[in-house]
Amino acid sequence: MNDKIVVDLNADLGESFGQFKIGNDDALLNIVTSANVACGFHGGDPEVMASTFASAKKKGVAIGAHPGFPDLWGFGRRVMPFSHDEIERIISYQIGAAQALARYAGHRISYVKTHGALGNMFERDPAVATSILNAVERTAPELPLMAISRSHLERLGRERGMTILSEIFADRAYTEDGKLVPRSEDGAVLHDPVFAAERMVRMVKAGAVETRTGKMLPAWIDTICVHGDNPESLDVARKVREALEAEGVQLQSRF
Amino acid sequence: MNDKIVVDLNADLGESFGQFKIGNDDALLNIVTSANVACGFHGGDPEVMASTFASAKKKGVAIGAHPGFPDLWGFGRRVMPFSHDEIERIISYQIGAAQALARYAGHRISYVKTHGALGNMFERDPAVATSILNAVERTAPELPLMAISRSHLERLGRERGMTILSEIFADRAYTEDGKLVPRSEDGAVLHDPVFAAERMVRMVKAGAVETRTGKMLPAWIDTICVHGDNPESLDVARKVREALEAEGVQLQSRF
Amino acid sequence: MNDKIVVDLNADLGESFGQFKIGNDDALLNIVTSANVACGFHGGDPEVMASTFASAKKKGVAIGAHPGFPDLWGFGRRVMPFSHDEIERIISYQIGAAQALARYAGHRISYVKTHGALGNMFERDPAVATSILNAVERTAPELPLMAISRSHLERLGRERGMTILSEIFADRAYTEDGKLVPRSEDGAVLHDPVFAAERMVRMVKAGAVETRTGKMLPAWIDTICVHGDNPESLDVARKVREALEAEGVQLQSRF
Amino acid sequence: MNDKIVVDLNADLGESFGQFKIGNDDALLNIVTSANVACGFHGGDPEVMASTFASAKKKGVAIGAHPGFPDLWGFGRRVMPFSHDEIERIISYQIGAAQALARYAGHRISYVKTHGALGNMFERDPAVATSILNAVERTAPELPLMAISRSHLERLGRERGMTILSEIFADRAYTEDGKLVPRSEDGAVLHDPVFAAERMVRMVKAGAVETRTGKMLPAWIDTICVHGDNPESLDVARKVREALEAEGVQLQSRF
Repeated sequence: MNDKIVVDLNADLGESFGQFKIGNDDALLNIVTSANVACGFHGGDPEVMASTFASAKKKGVAIGAHPGFPDLWGFGRRVMPFSHDEIERIISYQIGAAQALARYAGHRISYVKTHGALGNMFERDPAVATSILNAVERTAPELPLMAISRSHLERLGRERGMTILSEIFADRAYTEDGKLVPRSEDGAVLHDPVFAAERMVRMVKAGAVETRTGKMLPAWIDTICVHGDNPESLDVARKVREALEAEGVQLQSRF
Repeated sequence: MNDKIVVDLNADLGESFGQFKIGNDDALLNIVTSANVACGFHGGDPEVMASTFASAKKKGVAIGAHPGFPDLWGFGRRVMPFSHDEIERIISYQIGAAQALARYAGHRISYVKTHGALGNMFERDPAVATSILNAVERTAPELPLMAISRSHLERLGRERGMTILSEIFADRAYTEDGKLVPRSEDGAVLHDPVFAAERMVRMVKAGAVETRTGKMLPAWIDTICVHGDNPESLDVARKVREALEAEGVQLQSRF
Repeated sequence: MNDKIVVDLNADLGESFGQFKIGNDDALLNIVTSANVACGFHGGDPEVMASTFASAKKKGVAIGAHPGFPDLWGFGRRVMPFSHDEIERIISYQIGAAQALARYAGHRISYVKTHGALGNMFERDPAVATSILNAVERTAPELPLMAISRSHLERLGRERGMTILSEIFADRAYTEDGKLVPRSEDGAVLHDPVFAAERMVRMVKAGAVETRTGKMLPAWIDTICVHGDNPESLDVARKVREALEAEGVQLQSRF
Repeated sequence: MNDKIVVDLNADLGESFGQFKIGNDDALLNIVTSANVACGFHGGDPEVMASTFASAKKKGVAIGAHPGFPDLWGFGRRVMPFSHDEIERIISYQIGAAQALARYAGHRISYVKTHGALGNMFERDPAVATSILNAVERTAPELPLMAISRSHLERLGRERGMTILSEIFADRAYTEDGKLVPRSEDGAVLHDPVFAAERMVRMVKAGAVETRTGKMLPAWIDTICVHGDNPESLDVARKVREALEAEGVQLQSRF
């Protein structure tokens, strides 16, 4: 009988654009089980997408479409003035492009995760969450959607009966009501790999989000988001993986 | 027993970009049976694509992905310096984007036709024809590809066993060896709607391309390309449709 | 002794992009005395800019740099998420590009007028007005700036001692406090060329903005904005010019 | 009496785009006397331009407009299908944008150097050299133009009486007829900082280009191009500077 805890490790990849290299894709592909791949709007281009998909396939890493605003200059982090309807089409377009290039590269998109401002706005504006859900449902209803655990997007998606992959963050602190501490606040980002890794083990085992004061709030946990922007975050990612494995947690994509 | 001749009428549509309107989409959707819809690289955007797909669905018009070079400034008509491999990825990306937005809009992409420079280069460079065939085969092998009748692309595609929709042009003259007369030459473009329409009837009935001197060269004819850039070309398109219908030819997409 | 009233007539021009044609530049160049020329961010491209400048030179029409948000898709009409500082650099860049291509084409930029959202935001956000003033002052202090008559931008610019060209609109109604009636309201846009032309004559002679109820509010009037988007607005533009000339008002750029 | 040899050290800078960082600008600004700053077409953006200009001003480094093809994806290295006339307008636009942002940032553009494919094409196609010369002459006749020593561009520019800054390369080998060894050949790029530095001293003192076999070909030498793409090229740049200073050569921009 297998009662192992299973969890996925995801990170953003494939965000380079032509000669403009960004991120540590090679290193991350050895750590994560799922790669959120940029679709050419906020980062990435057809060349980067195809080669990232091919590398992920070779490493046995699952791939997700990672659509963002059409804002290369702002890397998808600015809240762009698109209507809720326009957001649906922007996401749909990118999901399709990613699916096609994944097939081209011999791999297969197995989930969707929105990027940057599109990945945060749904917390402030439930209509954006609805747009994201609509886009996935009308374009690729077979695909699960990654959503921040305890977010409106997660709740609305589950209410619709869609497959939601609930996500927690390896290097982000949580408030007492289970939200991410805003980056503007001290302590928002965890820098100590050992603490971060041990915290992840506690959360995954408990099926709960651990707040700054140590309170455990019940939460769906399907996947853990790690980063690779700098040596430090990469170190956190590695330690999280090692600690989970040491505790017998099985790391694998859920698709 | 039905021994009617069946032929498809296609035109480029959905090439507007935001406030930049181009073409006569509403008029053309009442004439053609297939719409080649721009995919956002040389023209079109997610909004235009989704609304064009929805309109086509309502009118019962089939839709094709119409990928071009990433060259909005040049409208996809310039030969851009992409390698043969890069061309594959550029086409694959756009096919997927179109498929997704077609699903989103309640329609379905049923063929691929390359645009502008990507739609001509394969005559001068068979390696480009191979890139186009590779892109379709690896991305959407179920989709037929439109190719100029008697072109390398048509021949190479048929040799591979791919479904090719052979295309003739309603308003373009043909040389004695069955090629399009270059636009730089006098008489390259037909302006007389009546002559153009009668010529189309002759070609379709004969299953042959009619040269400038009236010679008939055997050719596959699955679809006729018409244009809507100006009132004149639109008039040719209408007359061609009327003449074919008057002769009992059945106009319908082959998909 | 010359006590003629002098006023300038301006319109947006040069907004086409490659094959994407927009506007009625040829017609407008025969009507206006100043052309606000797009600088490649919301419309226009180096080819369109150079040829528009050359045409204006030939017709004796003054040219202004008409910077907008970097938003070709939205035609510069969307409020883009740029900081006040970023807006300064965006405007500065475009002023310089326009100056260079004007010199290249044998003409000379003689004023600045911001476009679309950049042309409205300063009414809601005085900090944007400050950004616009900063950009002009630091980049091209010798250039006058067009500003809506009775706007914050006009007031702040005059307070700084900058040369402001105060602008009224030929086809827009004014509220009782001298603001433009929002386009969402009935009667915001005037469609009757005769009424529009007579109103302009009244305003220019009185040095006042005429409100919907006929009240006259004192205002600086250096230039009148006309449009050429459609046959109707073009007709308004022509009638305004004719009426002013018939009343002995001298139409000329102020530079 | 001052008979010191004077030479300029230049490098490409300001090529980052938003979050996409490229190059080692901080390190290079401590080495070079002139910075070739990207103008937003192949790299750079208004923010990067303004801050690079401000940093250069603070360090006493001269700045040049460094226009390239409008090809962010290809970083300006691809030969884009623009006509000779279009190339003139593309260059003119960027020179102006750079001049404006330089003024904005409190600095002043003091030369022009074309980038990437626009910086090589003139060797194969003298008509491109003519386009570059036309653009500078019509847009900013007061600005010198950097040109590869012994190139067509240098010769044609000097024949016109334009101010040309002749350029040699610190880390590139020269053929027996004084051309750059193509990058595809072994030994095209020098990796040994000591050898590169000593070779530069020999060239600058002799006023000659040193070929692979040690032959000295007379050449104008106003400026030396160094790179900062990687630690190695940065090391070459530093050693070249140190060696020239040790030999009493005065490093300064010529403007």
